[in-house]
Amino acid sequence: MDEYYMKLAIEEANKAAAIGEVPIGAIIVYKDEVIASAYNLRETTKNATTHAELLAIQEACNKLENWRLEETTLYVTLEPCPMCAGAILQSRIPRVVYGARDAKAGCVDSLYHLLNDSRFNHECDVTEGVLAEECGNLLTEFFRDLRAKKKNQKRQL
Amino acid sequence: MDEYYMKLAIEEANKAAAIGEVPIGAIIVYKDEVIASAYNLRETTKNATTHAELLAIQEACNKLENWRLEETTLYVTLEPCPMCAGAILQSRIPRVVYGARDAKAGCVDSLYHLLNDSRFNHECDVTEGVLAEECGNLLTEFFRDLRAKKKNQKRQL
Repeated sequence: MDEYYMKLAIEEANKAAAIGEVPIGAIIVYKDEVIASAYNLRETTKNATTHAELLAIQEACNKLENWRLEETTLYVTLEPCPMCAGAILQSRIPRVVYGARDAKAGCVDSLYHLLNDSRFNHECDVTEGVLAEECGNLLTEFFRDLRAKKKNQKRQL
Repeated sequence: MDEYYMKLAIEEANKAAAIGEVPIGAIIVYKDEVIASAYNLRETTKNATTHAELLAIQEACNKLENWRLEETTLYVTLEPCPMCAGAILQSRIPRVVYGARDAKAGCVDSLYHLLNDSRFNHECDVTEGVLAEECGNLLTEFFRDLRAKKKNQKRQL
């Protein structure tokens, strides 16, 4: 079931790539129903907070009319950054499933373990590595294409 | 000057208290101009992400039409939580001034030093303790009043 939902998160990430946004996607499942889906929109919105996870959390809070997202699972293609890990704690999401690790900014396993610190008033059950290769490849290919485009633009100048 | 701007953040916190929200306020200053001001709205919005800092950052991004909030200073009455500290990093705010420490969830000095970790792609200049007592008292009084109200309600039942 985790792979099924992660594929939906990957579909979201692909929507980001299609408009030139770094391809990261997230969905939130509540009682076997997808109640929120979002992708990174930072460049489009010119708003630093519009990461996939944060947008999905805001949508889910609206949907459930509650800032506590109990009985939900968040699926995201990349390990959450400090902001998104913090938003997961704030919204009390009980379970988080992510695809690829983010060695540079990941705050679930890579740099910090923010979702499993007993000093905070919430901790999450975390599953990592679901479709990790596919999730990671999306990013690798996106940045490879971006570099190629920039190289071509320079040649044409 | 820091005290002047912190007083504006305290005014925001008072607006939160007036509607029964935990009194935390934030403002963002860009080139000597206040470009964003916000207060905690979690209960009103039923949205876990509507902390004062996050709302102020979103407003400032809209105002500057940029996800990079260069040349800004964020003033906030309470030490930021992981979500808000992460949003500060994401929006590249160069300077953060806060009032009271948050021993339970503060991620600038208390539990973590997220704004000063050279592994991230951004670090902040941090000033703490500006009007700290006033900022902290706001919270102490708010929770004391809340407990008193709850006690009275129980008596009336």
